[in-house]
Amino acid sequence: MAENGSDVSTEDPQDPPGEPRGPVTIAYIAESAGVSVPTVSKVLNGRPGVSGDTRTRVEEAINRYGYKKPPGSRNNTVELVFRELKSLWAVEIIRGVERVAGKNRVGMMVSEFGLHDAPTRTVDDMVGRRPNCVLSVAQLSDQERERLSEKGIPFVIFDPTDEPPDDVPFVGATNWRGGQSATRHLIGLGHRRIAMITGPRDVSCFRARQAGYTSALDAAGLAADPRLMVNAPLTREDGREAARVLLTQADRPTAIFTSNDLQALGVYQAARDLGLTIPDDLSVVGFDDLPVVAWVEPPLTTVHQPLTEMAAAATELALSLGRGEKPAQIGLEIATTLTIRSSTAAPPEERKKI
Amino acid sequence: MAENGSDVSTEDPQDPPGEPRGPVTIAYIAESAGVSVPTVSKVLNGRPGVSGDTRTRVEEAINRYGYKKPPGSRNNTVELVFRELKSLWAVEIIRGVERVAGKNRVGMMVSEFGLHDAPTRTVDDMVGRRPNCVLSVAQLSDQERERLSEKGIPFVIFDPTDEPPDDVPFVGATNWRGGQSATRHLIGLGHRRIAMITGPRDVSCFRARQAGYTSALDAAGLAADPRLMVNAPLTREDGREAARVLLTQADRPTAIFTSNDLQALGVYQAARDLGLTIPDDLSVVGFDDLPVVAWVEPPLTTVHQPLTEMAAAATELALSLGRGEKPAQIGLEIATTLTIRSSTAAPPEERKKI
Repeated sequence: MAENGSDVSTEDPQDPPGEPRGPVTIAYIAESAGVSVPTVSKVLNGRPGVSGDTRTRVEEAINRYGYKKPPGSRNNTVELVFRELKSLWAVEIIRGVERVAGKNRVGMMVSEFGLHDAPTRTVDDMVGRRPNCVLSVAQLSDQERERLSEKGIPFVIFDPTDEPPDDVPFVGATNWRGGQSATRHLIGLGHRRIAMITGPRDVSCFRARQAGYTSALDAAGLAADPRLMVNAPLTREDGREAARVLLTQADRPTAIFTSNDLQALGVYQAARDLGLTIPDDLSVVGFDDLPVVAWVEPPLTTVHQPLTEMAAAATELALSLGRGEKPAQIGLEIATTLTIRSSTAAPPEERKKI
Repeated sequence: MAENGSDVSTEDPQDPPGEPRGPVTIAYIAESAGVSVPTVSKVLNGRPGVSGDTRTRVEEAINRYGYKKPPGSRNNTVELVFRELKSLWAVEIIRGVERVAGKNRVGMMVSEFGLHDAPTRTVDDMVGRRPNCVLSVAQLSDQERERLSEKGIPFVIFDPTDEPPDDVPFVGATNWRGGQSATRHLIGLGHRRIAMITGPRDVSCFRARQAGYTSALDAAGLAADPRLMVNAPLTREDGREAARVLLTQADRPTAIFTSNDLQALGVYQAARDLGLTIPDDLSVVGFDDLPVVAWVEPPLTTVHQPLTEMAAAATELALSLGRGEKPAQIGLEIATTLTIRSSTAAPPEERKKI
């Protein structure tokens, strides 16, 4: 049976069936340890549901005979990649991914790459770790996408900033609908001079928010007034500057919709600078619903981006692709909702009528 | 040489020295692929600095002969564990860990465990993934610590809530000094009736902040007045309630130091409720320096917790332990700093004198 067969008689019945001849398989480890194949698999993948004793026995067998995962096999992880781990909402994304990864007993590897100021991670790092799939909050270059495809590692783009080709899986938010519902809310309150601080023109989601704004104005028979649209970067300071431009016009707007919450906080500053009260003199609607905006005075009405839900959906999609499934939909947008707080009210002229 | 030796003569010179007899080593793979051992190691660990061609050749050799990491070898990752991925500062910790992990070409695995509402990760998941080391923002139970020690996986506790035994590595912040510098700042402005909203008594860092407050009062010859210390949970709503209690006393405080920034935001609300202006009628100092507190009105003076630096130091320590080194210090506190913004000023009676 084996070259050193002379020892066999002294071994206990749970001992292995003999020295392995070919590669050590899970089945061989299972037989050696006197347990089932799923139990070995649990131990190999660090899953629970195995008693301490059994785990020890399986680990001993693995250490004794060795076990090599089949070439090209995956490491039971999802890679979550950020270009920069800086934004206030990174944690909401991480949380959404972790909830789904945890439920599926898959590890979550988080990395930041493509930064200029430090030795950085590259797509090769990821490839080398053999994840089941990649979820990228960073935009991937064509080259990076190719490298992943070449290695058979599926990926999903989270909230794409550009419009990815049709065969690239993505999960985003309904930005156009969000822009529309913010604007409709203001129209419903009686506002007619509704301004927008627009965002980066090369980023798809900001174009969509702006298009939602003009569509809602259009539908209400209000022409979009170019003097009421000011383009600005996405910071509080730039929002303040843009709002100052809007609010010092002769016929100033009674409401401002911004491309993100930081710009809206800048509008708050500009209003204070000019002695205007929110919402009495000016209504403000933001976009994102960062945790902070419920704590400012007055609490901000804003379009809620369901980041945790988006991240969960993206992870489900990525894991499904990682299992080799063919999901019916590989591109989806999760619905935004309008969170109405205290920064919006009827415009001054409407209130005077009452 | 090998059972199928008849094929050998037809193979090209870069072909392997013969079929492997023992376990396949990195040296064997290197010889087979005609590259150096460090190059194979780079490919195995997904590191850069290997040309595409070479990488392909090494991968082919690995796929052909297989390569099994030595039993018990690590997966070149650091595990970052949270009890709950919810706090506003989780992302700062993640960023600090990632910066150091990236620099060291080590992957960062993030997980959340110990929650009650979902199938959760366990310490066994981590053990099964064979990380180099664990950095735990969650407190580990004695049992969890034992399981890691038993498996030879070193761990570092991030910002411990209890006082861990002397042999448990940790990285925290100088909470006592932080409490002291906040209080000294208020004393320096001329305040004498300085209140504190204290935090959870069973958590070490909050006790330390409170002790820093009383020490600073003491050093200035001011007795700590028990009526000026109100205990409250760490939320904005509880901070508001506690501040209401303090500010409706006959001889109300002219300054309030809080155990965290959320409580301070609650003090802002209470002040508004009572028609008090910050900092004219009341000075407020928080603790944490969350990104949001620079954006409220007035921007909050607060004790800055260097979370990113703490996370970086903790990761350096964990990786060093993972390499089997014996660092001189296994417990450290990174210094807090006072960030002075606009919520603190001289008390009303002092300003009248001027």
